[in-house]
Amino acid sequence: MAAPPFTRPRRLLPLFLGLFQGALLLFFALFFTYDKPSAQAEDANSTNQVYSIFPFFQDIQVMLVVGLGLLLTFLPRYGFSALTHNFLLLNFSMQWALVLQGLLHHFHHGQVYLDLRKLLISEFAAVTVLISVGAILGRISPCQLLAMATCEVPAYLASEWVIVNCLGVLDVGGTITIHVFSCYFGLGVSKALFGAARQPLHPQETPTARSDLMSLVGMLILWVFWPSFVAVLCQPGDAQHRAILNTLLVMSASTITTVVVSSLLERDGKLSPGHLQNGSLAGGVAIGVVADMAMPPVAALALGSLSAIVCVLGFRFLTPLLRRKLTLQDQCGIHNLHGLPGILGATASVMVILTAPEDTSGSHFSQLSPTGGNASEVVEGPWGGRGVRGQALCQAAGLAVAISASLLSGLLTGAVLRLPCLARPPDQLCFDDSLYFKIQDQTESLRPGSSAEEGALALKE
Amino acid sequence: MAAPPFTRPRRLLPLFLGLFQGALLLFFALFFTYDKPSAQAEDANSTNQVYSIFPFFQDIQVMLVVGLGLLLTFLPRYGFSALTHNFLLLNFSMQWALVLQGLLHHFHHGQVYLDLRKLLISEFAAVTVLISVGAILGRISPCQLLAMATCEVPAYLASEWVIVNCLGVLDVGGTITIHVFSCYFGLGVSKALFGAARQPLHPQETPTARSDLMSLVGMLILWVFWPSFVAVLCQPGDAQHRAILNTLLVMSASTITTVVVSSLLERDGKLSPGHLQNGSLAGGVAIGVVADMAMPPVAALALGSLSAIVCVLGFRFLTPLLRRKLTLQDQCGIHNLHGLPGILGATASVMVILTAPEDTSGSHFSQLSPTGGNASEVVEGPWGGRGVRGQALCQAAGLAVAISASLLSGLLTGAVLRLPCLARPPDQLCFDDSLYFKIQDQTESLRPGSSAEEGALALKE
Amino acid sequence: MAAPPFTRPRRLLPLFLGLFQGALLLFFALFFTYDKPSAQAEDANSTNQVYSIFPFFQDIQVMLVVGLGLLLTFLPRYGFSALTHNFLLLNFSMQWALVLQGLLHHFHHGQVYLDLRKLLISEFAAVTVLISVGAILGRISPCQLLAMATCEVPAYLASEWVIVNCLGVLDVGGTITIHVFSCYFGLGVSKALFGAARQPLHPQETPTARSDLMSLVGMLILWVFWPSFVAVLCQPGDAQHRAILNTLLVMSASTITTVVVSSLLERDGKLSPGHLQNGSLAGGVAIGVVADMAMPPVAALALGSLSAIVCVLGFRFLTPLLRRKLTLQDQCGIHNLHGLPGILGATASVMVILTAPEDTSGSHFSQLSPTGGNASEVVEGPWGGRGVRGQALCQAAGLAVAISASLLSGLLTGAVLRLPCLARPPDQLCFDDSLYFKIQDQTESLRPGSSAEEGALALKE
Repeated sequence: MAAPPFTRPRRLLPLFLGLFQGALLLFFALFFTYDKPSAQAEDANSTNQVYSIFPFFQDIQVMLVVGLGLLLTFLPRYGFSALTHNFLLLNFSMQWALVLQGLLHHFHHGQVYLDLRKLLISEFAAVTVLISVGAILGRISPCQLLAMATCEVPAYLASEWVIVNCLGVLDVGGTITIHVFSCYFGLGVSKALFGAARQPLHPQETPTARSDLMSLVGMLILWVFWPSFVAVLCQPGDAQHRAILNTLLVMSASTITTVVVSSLLERDGKLSPGHLQNGSLAGGVAIGVVADMAMPPVAALALGSLSAIVCVLGFRFLTPLLRRKLTLQDQCGIHNLHGLPGILGATASVMVILTAPEDTSGSHFSQLSPTGGNASEVVEGPWGGRGVRGQALCQAAGLAVAISASLLSGLLTGAVLRLPCLARPPDQLCFDDSLYFKIQDQTESLRPGSSAEEGALALKE
Repeated sequence: MAAPPFTRPRRLLPLFLGLFQGALLLFFALFFTYDKPSAQAEDANSTNQVYSIFPFFQDIQVMLVVGLGLLLTFLPRYGFSALTHNFLLLNFSMQWALVLQGLLHHFHHGQVYLDLRKLLISEFAAVTVLISVGAILGRISPCQLLAMATCEVPAYLASEWVIVNCLGVLDVGGTITIHVFSCYFGLGVSKALFGAARQPLHPQETPTARSDLMSLVGMLILWVFWPSFVAVLCQPGDAQHRAILNTLLVMSASTITTVVVSSLLERDGKLSPGHLQNGSLAGGVAIGVVADMAMPPVAALALGSLSAIVCVLGFRFLTPLLRRKLTLQDQCGIHNLHGLPGILGATASVMVILTAPEDTSGSHFSQLSPTGGNASEVVEGPWGGRGVRGQALCQAAGLAVAISASLLSGLLTGAVLRLPCLARPPDQLCFDDSLYFKIQDQTESLRPGSSAEEGALALKE
Repeated sequence: MAAPPFTRPRRLLPLFLGLFQGALLLFFALFFTYDKPSAQAEDANSTNQVYSIFPFFQDIQVMLVVGLGLLLTFLPRYGFSALTHNFLLLNFSMQWALVLQGLLHHFHHGQVYLDLRKLLISEFAAVTVLISVGAILGRISPCQLLAMATCEVPAYLASEWVIVNCLGVLDVGGTITIHVFSCYFGLGVSKALFGAARQPLHPQETPTARSDLMSLVGMLILWVFWPSFVAVLCQPGDAQHRAILNTLLVMSASTITTVVVSSLLERDGKLSPGHLQNGSLAGGVAIGVVADMAMPPVAALALGSLSAIVCVLGFRFLTPLLRRKLTLQDQCGIHNLHGLPGILGATASVMVILTAPEDTSGSHFSQLSPTGGNASEVVEGPWGGRGVRGQALCQAAGLAVAISASLLSGLLTGAVLRLPCLARPPDQLCFDDSLYFKIQDQTESLRPGSSAEEGALALKE
C-alpha cells in the first residue's frame, strides 16, 4: 500500500481545520448573539420562522447531507470519502458563510442577530461548494477541498449580492445565483488545476451495479425534496404554492423525458444509469428562476422536458467534446446538470417576463416582483419600476455576471489549489477510500474465509 | 449475453413515452391553469394548502419513491430496475391521472385550476399502479408496465368515484379504494398474462442477505411515514389527530405480532425476512378505512394484530395454495399485504359503524361522517341520512364493487398485455437489470483483480 | 451450521411477545380512550398537537427507526438483526411505556386519554432502551433484549419523574434523563451480564467497507434530524427557535472537531470511521440540557467542539482502558457518545445557570424556567423560586441521580438477564444474522456461479 508516503499531506487537514474552528469561535464570541433589542416582537417572529422555514430547512438538510452525499457514491471505492467530504464541506462552508455574511452585511449594526433565515442563506452558500466539487470529485485532497470552499464562499456571496441586490434579478430558487455560478466555478477550478494534461481513465472510476444503486437512491431523495429547496424563500401564499406545483411538474416531466432521450441515444435502447441520475433532476435546476412567476402549468412541463433533453445530450456529446477539445475534466458532469439547465432556466425567465401581461398594476405583476429572498430594500412597484424590458435585460445581465464571475474566480481558485503545500494525491491513489480512511480493504470480506462457519472456527483470543 | 435480440422491443419504450409526454403537453396547454376567477380568496387557500397538505405530501412522496422503491429491491439483481420502474411509473401514472381527473371532473368548467390537492389525488391513483405491479414484478417489460398503468388509472378513478361519491363509503385512508382495488387488479393482470402456465422458480428470485437488508430499509421508511398517508385527507383537528394515533398504534401492534407469528410458523423458530417486510405494514393497510372513526384505542391494536396474523398466514399457506391450485403468480405477495388486510379493514369498518352509539346527533356521529376526501357534496346529517345499517351496508357494497371492478379490469388489462407488440421478455432474461440498463455486470467488482493495489498497477491510458 | 441446537431458546421469543401483546390489549381495553369529557376545547388542542408536534414526531421516528437502525449495521453480518431488533425494541418499549405511564400518572383519573404527546413521551422511554442496547449489541438474544426493555422502561420513568418533577431539573433535550441514564444503565447491564470474563474479539466484529458506509448513512440521518429531537418539547416561540439554532451550531462544530481530533490521534493521519460515526453526534447529546437557555451562540459552538474531543478521546483511550481494567464491554462505545458528552452537557448547564444575569424578573430568566416537558405543576417564578444557586445544585443532583439510579438498575437487570431461561447465544454464534433469521448465507451471492449468464443456463423447473 502506498499510503505511508502520503502521511505528511494528511497532517495538514487537522491543522487547517483546527485553526479555522478556533478562529470561528473567536468570531462568534465577538459578533454573534441571540438577543435583539426589540424582544417584544421577537417571539412571534421566532414562532413564524420555526413553523414556516424549519420544515423546509430540514428537507434541504436531508437533500444535501444524505441525498447529494449518496448521489456522489457512484464511484465504487470512493463512497465513504464522497459522503464524508460532502458532509465536512457542508459544515465548513456553512460556518464560513455565516461568519462572512455576519461581517459583511451587518458590521455597521454591531452585534449580529442569529436566526434560522441567516443559517439558511449560509446553507445556500455551502450548496455552491458542494456542486462545484462535482467537477473534480475524487482527484483532489481534503485540504484542497477546504481551500476551494474558502475561496468560493466569498466569491459566491459577492456575486449573489451583485445579481440579486444590485441588478434586482428574480431568482427565487437559485438557478442563476447558485447552480450556474457553482457549475462554472467548478469548471474553472478543474481547468486551472489539471491544465492541459488529459486525465487518464482510472479503473476505479467505473460505477458498479451496487454503487450505481446507491447513487440512484441519492438521486431519488434529492428529487423528492427538491420542491422545498425551490420554494423555501418564496412569499408565503400563492407564490409559494405555485412554486411547489411548478417544481413538482417540472421534475415529473424531466424524469419521463430523460428515459425517452437516454433510450433513444443508446444503440441497443438500454438506459444509462448516469443519465437517469442526472437528467431527472435537470428540470429542478431550470425551474428555480421562474418557479413563482405567472406562467401556465404547461410551461413548467415544457421546461422540464427541455432541461432533460439538454442534460442528456450534454452527457452524450458535449462532455466528451469538452474533454477532447479543451481537455476539460468534469467528473460528475455538473455542466450538464447545473450549467446547461441553468442557462435554459435563465432564458426561460426572460421569455416569461417578456410575455407577461403588460398591465403593470394587475395581480400577475405583483407575483413577479422580488419575493424577499435577500432583497432587503422595498421595491417601488413591480421590478423597482424598471418595466418589462428592463427586468428581462436584468435577468440576462445576471446570467452573464454569474458566468463570468464564477469562471474568473474558479480559475484563480484552481491556481491556488496547485500550491504544492495542498498536496494533490498522485493519480494512481485517487478514487480510493483507503487513502484517507482507516477502512477495511473492500475485497477482504469477499474471500471465502470470511464465511460464517469458518469464521466461527477461526475464533481465537 | 442474449441482450441484442431484445433491442427492438426496447425501442418501443421511448416511442410510447415520447408520444405520451407530447400529448400531455397539449392537454396541459389546453386545459390547465393556475389562475382562478376568485383571486381574492386564493391566497389564504394557497397558504392553507401549503401548510396543511404539503408536509404530508412530501412524506407520501418519500414513501412511494424511496420506501416502496427500496422495498422492491429484494430481488438481488433487479434492484436498479425495481427502483427505476417504480419511479417512472409513479411519474407516468400521476400525470395521466392528472389529465383524466381534469378532463372528467371539471370539463364543464372549462379551464382546470391546478392545486396541491389535485396532485395528491393523482398521486393516490399512481399508488394503485405501484401496488399492482408487485404481482408481476420482474417478469414484464417497461412497455407492459406503462400499458398497465394506462389501463389501471381510469379504472381506478371510475371505481373510486362509484365507491366514494355514489355509495358514500367512508374510506379516508384508501383501504378499499386503493389497497383492495390495486391488489385484485394486479392479481387479475397476473392471471390473464401468465394463464395456466406455472412460472418456474428463477434462480435470481431468491433474495440475498444484502438485497433483504435494502428491502428492510424500504419497509422501515414506509412504516415511519404511513400515518401521513392515512391522515392526509382527514378533517383537520380531532379526526386527523385520531387517525394519526390509530395508525401509530396499529403499525406497532402489527410489528410485534408479525414477529410472534413468523417465529411460531417456522420449524426452527427463525424469522423470515419476507414476513417482516410485509407483516409490519399490514396494519397500516387495514386501518385506513376506520382510522378517523370513533372507536376505542384497543380496537386499533387488535386490528393491527389481526392484520399481521392474516398477512403472515397468507404468505405461509395461501400464496403457495393459490399458486398450486389456480396457477396464480403473486411475486411480492400483494394479496397478503394489500388484499387480506384490506378486506379485514372493510369488515372492521362495518363493525365499528354498527356498534357506534345510536344517538345520531352526538359528537360520535359527526366523527363518522364523510371527511371530505373526495366527497364534494355536502351530506345531510351523518351518512347522508342513511342511518347506521345503511352505512354499514354501503361499506360492504363498496368492498364488493372494489373487488369485482378491479378483477374484471385487471383481467382485461392482462389480456391487453399479451399483445405481442408489448414484448414480454423471455423467462431466462427476467429479474436482471442488464436487460434494460447499461449496468456493469454484478460479479465484475468481486474479482480479486479489482483490489486497490492491483487496480493502481493496472492503470493505463 | 450450529443453528438447530438453539431452536428451543428461539421458541421463547414468540411466547414472551405474544403474552405481552395479549396483556397489552387487555390494559388498553380497560384504561385507554380517545374521549375526553371536555370535548369542546378538544378540537383546537388536537389541531395544535397535529401541527406543532407531529412533524417533529415524524422526524424522531425516522431517527430511531431508520437512522439509529442503520448506525448499528456496522457489524457486517449482523445488519439485518441490528435493524430488526432495534425496530422491535422500539415498538415493544413504546407500548410498554405507554401502559406504565397511563397506569402510574393517571390512575386516579380513571380512563386515560391518549394523545400524541403521551406517545412522544413513551417514544422517549423507548429511546433509552435503544441506546442501552449499544453496550451489548450482538452478544445477547432477543429474549434478553425484551427482558432488558421490560426492566429499563419503569426504571427510566421513575428516574425521569424524580429528576424532572421532584428536583425540577431543566433538561429539555433529555441529556441527563435520557442519554446519561441509558448509557450507565447499558454499562451496568454489560458488567453484570459478562462479569469478569473478557469477551474475545470476534472475527465478525470488524466492520467492512460496506457496513461502515451503511452505518455512516445512519449517522447522517440522525445528524440531520437531531434538532427535532432536542426542540420538540420546547416552549414554542423564542425558546424553540433558539434550541434549534443551538443544536444546528453544536452539530456543526462537533463534525469539524471530530475530523480534527481523529486525524491527529492516528499515527498516519487517516480518519477512523468509528470516530466519525459517533463524534459528529456528540454535540447533540450535550446540547439537550442547555439548548433553550440564554447563552451566546459561541457557547454552543464551544460545547460542540468539547463534546467531540471528549468522545473521540474516549474511543481512543478510555474504552480500551475500561475493557482492560474493569473488563467492561461496550460494543458501540455508548459511554463515549452518550455518557461523557452527557456529563459535559450537565456541567455546562450548571455553568450557564450560574453565569446567567442575576435580574430574576428579566426575559433571560423566563427562558430558563422549566419548559413544560413533563413538569405538570406551574412553577412560581423562575425555578420555583429556588434561585440561581439552588437551580445549579439541582442540575448537579439530577446528574447524580441519573448515574446512580441507572447503574444500580442496570446491574440488577444484568443479573436478571443471566437467568438461563433467557438463553444467551454461545460466543461463536454471535454477530450473525443467520442465528435468528432465515437469511441466505452472505457468501452465496458472491460465488461466480451466480453470475447472470450461468444463472440463466442453470434455469430449471
